[in-house]
Amino acid sequence: MNIPQYMTELGERARRASRAMARATTAQKNAALLAMADAFERDCKSLLAENRKDMDAAKANGLDSAMLDRLELNEARVKAMADGVRQVAALADPIGAITEMNYRPSGIQVGKMRVPLGVIGIIYESRPNVTADAASLCLKSGNATILRGGSEAHHSNRAIAACVRAGLKSANLPDDAVQVIETTDRAAVHELVKMTRYVDVIVPRGGKGLIEMVSNEARVPVIKHLHGICHVYIDDAADIEKAIPIAFNAKTHRYGVCNAMETLLVAEALAERVLPTLAAMYLEKGVELRGCEKTRALVKSCKPATEEDWSTEYLAPILSIRVVKGLDQAIDHINTYGSQHTDAIVTEDLTRARIFLAEVDSSSVIVNASTRFADGFEYGLGAEIGISTDKIHARGPVGLEGLTSQKYVVIGDGHIRK
Amino acid sequence: MNIPQYMTELGERARRASRAMARATTAQKNAALLAMADAFERDCKSLLAENRKDMDAAKANGLDSAMLDRLELNEARVKAMADGVRQVAALADPIGAITEMNYRPSGIQVGKMRVPLGVIGIIYESRPNVTADAASLCLKSGNATILRGGSEAHHSNRAIAACVRAGLKSANLPDDAVQVIETTDRAAVHELVKMTRYVDVIVPRGGKGLIEMVSNEARVPVIKHLHGICHVYIDDAADIEKAIPIAFNAKTHRYGVCNAMETLLVAEALAERVLPTLAAMYLEKGVELRGCEKTRALVKSCKPATEEDWSTEYLAPILSIRVVKGLDQAIDHINTYGSQHTDAIVTEDLTRARIFLAEVDSSSVIVNASTRFADGFEYGLGAEIGISTDKIHARGPVGLEGLTSQKYVVIGDGHIRK
Repeated sequence: MNIPQYMTELGERARRASRAMARATTAQKNAALLAMADAFERDCKSLLAENRKDMDAAKANGLDSAMLDRLELNEARVKAMADGVRQVAALADPIGAITEMNYRPSGIQVGKMRVPLGVIGIIYESRPNVTADAASLCLKSGNATILRGGSEAHHSNRAIAACVRAGLKSANLPDDAVQVIETTDRAAVHELVKMTRYVDVIVPRGGKGLIEMVSNEARVPVIKHLHGICHVYIDDAADIEKAIPIAFNAKTHRYGVCNAMETLLVAEALAERVLPTLAAMYLEKGVELRGCEKTRALVKSCKPATEEDWSTEYLAPILSIRVVKGLDQAIDHINTYGSQHTDAIVTEDLTRARIFLAEVDSSSVIVNASTRFADGFEYGLGAEIGISTDKIHARGPVGLEGLTSQKYVVIGDGHIRK
Repeated sequence: MNIPQYMTELGERARRASRAMARATTAQKNAALLAMADAFERDCKSLLAENRKDMDAAKANGLDSAMLDRLELNEARVKAMADGVRQVAALADPIGAITEMNYRPSGIQVGKMRVPLGVIGIIYESRPNVTADAASLCLKSGNATILRGGSEAHHSNRAIAACVRAGLKSANLPDDAVQVIETTDRAAVHELVKMTRYVDVIVPRGGKGLIEMVSNEARVPVIKHLHGICHVYIDDAADIEKAIPIAFNAKTHRYGVCNAMETLLVAEALAERVLPTLAAMYLEKGVELRGCEKTRALVKSCKPATEEDWSTEYLAPILSIRVVKGLDQAIDHINTYGSQHTDAIVTEDLTRARIFLAEVDSSSVIVNASTRFADGFEYGLGAEIGISTDKIHARGPVGLEGLTSQKYVVIGDGHIRK
């Protein structure tokens, strides 16, 4: 297979399909989504049979149990996938909305119209349900999509994509609006991220290695999610009854997620009242604690934290703890060691809350709530294609709107420039 | 000079200054801008003396008269520069605005806060007034700036930057918020566009060569403006009394600008009534015409257009003309040969206007007005740092808002994730 030629053809088909998708009505897009969801349920048996091929190969290749779990489809997961697509159908269509339409002194009217980005490339690993999630969000936002899943999920992804394409066809939309790269050759990915002519944005979903590779190679803009080194800062003026549950929830609600707290900062004045209680709770839950000198003076079982700990995303039952002088040092720590993902303050002091919100340079800044709320569903986006740690285009959880752009619309009545 | 080390130090200073700028109040930023404007007028003589050095060198190096004109400062231009900065001071401060603050079912409030991008690198050619324009827009939007002007304007840019930095100091803001790269070594540019750690976005302002070089090399996101192949389509349902002045204005108001029309499309049904009149007007104005067969049958003096003409940005008194069957062919032509910059339709038919607005994939789509309106001032942005032909982040004229991002703000009252 000639990879550059194959990818160019794929790109041309996607570009053509994207024009039809940009014109598609809301009713058409929703009909396609509902047909997709029905197809998943109707073809459940054959989806599971295709998934079985991937699972068998993965076991033969010695993939670990976490990987196998991510790869596996079962009836409940197929049902969940269909329901997810139906939820996307129920979301408001962002495309075509005209806002800020105002008259200018020249007499022309100027406003902005929300439009699709065009062609979106999604590169992801193992979990086959991403095929359905990503395709449905891109479809609803009027984009064409080129999908490249993990090679270990190849059969599953093809089977899911067949349902997606059947849904598109049934709504008289071009099935090229969702294409799966048919080769598992890595060269196809290297090609995809450089096809500026055919691809408008790349969304990599996966581990740090994948995202760094894509960022380094891409000529197409990337909406990327690097890592989440999230903090909770317990301020001098915190209500301890709120601070302790928030700090506990932020670390222990789930360990392997990007919005879990990795470092706890505690104001000196409060450390003695807060840390021993919290430490006991963490230790009972099996969380390993690594702290600064002052923390260790208050918590005997706490190991010493190294400089490296402050910039580590554990994604595990490990927590680093630092006692700070107060707000300024907390903000400084977060802006120095954090990853601009999600950071929270617990305080009853309005002025300090305002300063924290203004000065912490993260995609989500939170007052008196757990970092675990940083999520597209919790924020009301309906669904998310990822969480952006970039500042350009989309920041934080990215929903349908992050997959769109705006163009200027101008209406005159024969106006010329003087 | 060790360029990588020099640029790293510059970057570190910019990053530090950007944190102070993000915290700066509107009053402080405006005070700095007004002090800058005053400094330009007060130091006008020395600005002109520094500019004289650049002019003398440029003449000695044989720069052409257009280049010399762009490079030259005089009292009127310095005054205009100062007034431009005062206009930026008068614009509303976008930073800190919180919008869409709503309660979610969980009980948390979620909204978005507008924040600066951080550090903006501006790479530009010859015209020294860009130093003041770009610095003032970046300053007002709370960003730090690293400026790299053309080497031929080096003395002028340094002198302007000195006034800018004096203005910052007088308002107790860090003068490192605006830095000029002191070396004319090209290696500094190659370094700048790769410093993802210190620079959040690059805005290249200049010719196609500069922009392509920056796009190809940059690892930092780029807000770029490639080229403007703009169209006016005169529809079957056009009012000829509007169509003729619009088509004439779009081509002849100014030739060397990106929003000038380069190709005129005329519906077959109207060609006979429109083209001979328009052609006579263009020819009297000295515009060279290059047309399709049908155009040439109606306009004797029209040269034949080649395939290349349809994708050429003349920036000159040259116009290509094509007779099309109607709306569909016009849209197809524009989406095929255009540069997604600015395209206009002249029509009295509401349905065709709606189709044109929805389906033409350009940063500005216009009904019944000249393409020359695609401009930050005309659109009410107050000022523009450029026109983006990208879809990501900012599209069309980019004003203060294009130099900002939004972060999520979340307020709870002890909320934890269930």
